[in-house]
Amino acid sequence: MGRRPAAPNILLLLMDDMGWGDLGVYGEPSRETPNLDRMAAEGMLFPNFYSANPLCSPSRAALLTGRLPIRNGFYTTNAHARNAYTPQEIVGGIPDSEQLLPELLKKAGYVSKIVGKWHLGHRPQFHPLKHGFDEWFGSPNCHFGPYDNKARPNIPVYRDWEMVGRYYEEFPINLKTGEANLTQIYLQEALDFIKRQARHHPFFLYWAVDATHAPVYASKPFLGTSQRGRYGDAVREIDDSVGKMLELLHDLHVADNTFVFFTSDNGAALISAPEQAGSNGPFLCGKQTTFEGGMREPALAWWPGHIAAGQVSHQLGSIMDLFTTSLALAGLTPPRDRAIDGLNLLPALLQGWLMDRPVFYYRGDTLMATTLGQHKAHFWTWTNSWENFRQGIDFCPGQNVSGVTTHSLEDHTKLPLIFHLGRDPGERFPLSFASAEYQEALSRITSVVQQHQEALVPGQPQLNVCNWAVMVKMAERGGSHL
Amino acid sequence: MGRRPAAPNILLLLMDDMGWGDLGVYGEPSRETPNLDRMAAEGMLFPNFYSANPLCSPSRAALLTGRLPIRNGFYTTNAHARNAYTPQEIVGGIPDSEQLLPELLKKAGYVSKIVGKWHLGHRPQFHPLKHGFDEWFGSPNCHFGPYDNKARPNIPVYRDWEMVGRYYEEFPINLKTGEANLTQIYLQEALDFIKRQARHHPFFLYWAVDATHAPVYASKPFLGTSQRGRYGDAVREIDDSVGKMLELLHDLHVADNTFVFFTSDNGAALISAPEQAGSNGPFLCGKQTTFEGGMREPALAWWPGHIAAGQVSHQLGSIMDLFTTSLALAGLTPPRDRAIDGLNLLPALLQGWLMDRPVFYYRGDTLMATTLGQHKAHFWTWTNSWENFRQGIDFCPGQNVSGVTTHSLEDHTKLPLIFHLGRDPGERFPLSFASAEYQEALSRITSVVQQHQEALVPGQPQLNVCNWAVMVKMAERGGSHL
Repeated sequence: MGRRPAAPNILLLLMDDMGWGDLGVYGEPSRETPNLDRMAAEGMLFPNFYSANPLCSPSRAALLTGRLPIRNGFYTTNAHARNAYTPQEIVGGIPDSEQLLPELLKKAGYVSKIVGKWHLGHRPQFHPLKHGFDEWFGSPNCHFGPYDNKARPNIPVYRDWEMVGRYYEEFPINLKTGEANLTQIYLQEALDFIKRQARHHPFFLYWAVDATHAPVYASKPFLGTSQRGRYGDAVREIDDSVGKMLELLHDLHVADNTFVFFTSDNGAALISAPEQAGSNGPFLCGKQTTFEGGMREPALAWWPGHIAAGQVSHQLGSIMDLFTTSLALAGLTPPRDRAIDGLNLLPALLQGWLMDRPVFYYRGDTLMATTLGQHKAHFWTWTNSWENFRQGIDFCPGQNVSGVTTHSLEDHTKLPLIFHLGRDPGERFPLSFASAEYQEALSRITSVVQQHQEALVPGQPQLNVCNWAVMVKMAERGGSHL
Repeated sequence: MGRRPAAPNILLLLMDDMGWGDLGVYGEPSRETPNLDRMAAEGMLFPNFYSANPLCSPSRAALLTGRLPIRNGFYTTNAHARNAYTPQEIVGGIPDSEQLLPELLKKAGYVSKIVGKWHLGHRPQFHPLKHGFDEWFGSPNCHFGPYDNKARPNIPVYRDWEMVGRYYEEFPINLKTGEANLTQIYLQEALDFIKRQARHHPFFLYWAVDATHAPVYASKPFLGTSQRGRYGDAVREIDDSVGKMLELLHDLHVADNTFVFFTSDNGAALISAPEQAGSNGPFLCGKQTTFEGGMREPALAWWPGHIAAGQVSHQLGSIMDLFTTSLALAGLTPPRDRAIDGLNLLPALLQGWLMDRPVFYYRGDTLMATTLGQHKAHFWTWTNSWENFRQGIDFCPGQNVSGVTTHSLEDHTKLPLIFHLGRDPGERFPLSFASAEYQEALSRITSVVQQHQEALVPGQPQLNVCNWAVMVKMAERGGSHL
């Protein structure tokens, strides 16, 4: 492979609620992602790649800081093992003390843009342009709504500092038909930025589209084209968009100087199945849970001339590795004054190395599970409460593993449930407590977990307090510099 | 693509209890099938390909006759919707009135060999060399056992008419370690036959290995090499063997004159999970059931210079199509004096056609379900009896779809459960009975089912009677011509 250029462009394609099983190359039966499948064939596929949380906001904060949500503050202590994110009325957000990837990349001359969903806080001090991005087109939150009341306005859409409209108003989404032009707008924003930047600076483009998050949407030419319904229409439009971006990189002759990575923020939201949810393939449960379906993600790396075509890496990877790897690409080292959870994946990407490292599965402040090598130990199990479950909220529809998919928070810290993810990727058959394999795996994992927990300094929890008064802060100050 | 030669060789690679999700190209996370994945990349992959029954014997009888088991006699009327196969003591087998693929291929000058499992009856009149095969190396049944008593001898292994030994005796299988050389022997038999025949006649080789059927086995060099345990070791050895066969076809310069098809007889036997079962990917349940996991199969077609590389066909395919397609390849037409269920897939393989056709899912004499287009209607649901289930026999471990995975035979003939397999491949969300989509799908499927049932002439059921006296018939006459 060619020599590594000093500072390649970095394009992170972050999907929203897309599942491991949603791409043809990951076995989706309808096989409707020719561009992403080609990207995999021309690059490296990671079957063992993980988000940092089973929910959007914490996972995205982890990507941009290289740190677990428990460190960067994207968690709540309001209840044990409680998932939390950043609704409009959240008081917290990304602390100034956190150093975000685009802030650090500036030191190597990068110009950074975020297109799409930010999700790191709504108040003015959390604006992405205060945290290293040079440009933003998108929204601080998902396209929830429509809200037709003044107390809870529709979610705003920004161009840089300026609020240029709101979902369901200037940016319409037809909930009945699923029609919206947002992915096309996000695509255009990406193409324009790439064209502008490609010849001048190295760029960092963070393309965080949300069409696969319920309510799922697609633009008219894609609506009704998928065998998978509206969710598939959204995937097809994204696949088409990725194809256009990679084509542009080739046309601009910067493909071999652009590192592209595709992944998702958490597993498919099975609660929205079957119409508006993706697939977690053979894995158990989905978004909101710390089973594999909640946190194992599709992941593709592409860098022609550097990453050899047609490879599969069994490296245990994490969304937080994109932080450290991007810094390494830019010739930078991660901050030394804090714990960084992301690994530099370049040895895996360029030399095929396999590095030993744990994957930690948190819900809020609670370490639910840990994977090391092929073994995963569950210290706590929980899907959702009986109360929610009885109301029809099901994160594991059609799946019920006795003693595993529990509807109360079950404590296994004394005797964790351990699965071998190679033989049993679906987490259906816990190892016998009496087996030598169990004892050996437990001992290895326990030692790693102890080390992790002894050194852990939790960040100030940002997701504890909601207050309707702060809800419209970023929105109402749109149009003026903050 | 090149012109079709008059009579290409035909190599059918039929797996035993291998699931849809077992190949890397179908999304198996450990990705341990580089040769089969390459075969897919060089040929055509069918994500919507079905066996003819969720059990071995009927499925194999269907492949070789192009006819549903209900027609060719491979079913029982002993009980409603009862699965049946050919144990050693079975009285029935493939009737002389059935015309098997190798019998018909003789007319076009083919020399045929079966390597591995026959499964079409144990008595002398059912011997494969009485039904068109010119050569046989293998066994009339699976490698069950070991039986160490005279009443029930170990399963015999034949070379042509001669019984050359028995499993666990001359052909050892170490149940503790899983070690057996059988796949290597079957590979050598295939390679030898291909070498002998390639220059003279067109050949039909039916390679029906059984290493992935419990008790799962592999030879020493493969044992312990898979991330998936012993089942994965067996898959790796088969993958390696297929690679060697395709390589030999290239070396002999007959690759572009040999049609190769890879599939499996039924879904993964989840009852043997996790150590000795494969994966049905995102599909519901497994072997023995008429959910997708029981009958949707991996399927790859390969014919360099004729089938274009890198294609995916969404044709609804059936194992019975291999009968009709093979005849078409040989320039023959199927028998006109009987109903043939297999389609000629050449238009799909060579011109990318999609042909409308139903898939029928039977258990014994009962039509459980029918797929047409993307819709599947269940007329009956059943996994296994409460009695078996309470004894720990579970065909859907970790899966429980309320009202769908039932433990009693539930009659939905009046109001079938209908699923859209594109949006809901896992059969977890039945369509609402009130929806227009339900009504439209029901009407289309009902009409096809009525047509099917009105014309159906069931064959004489072969699997009704067991008798220990017949058990050793083929075996005891081994060594002499029958």
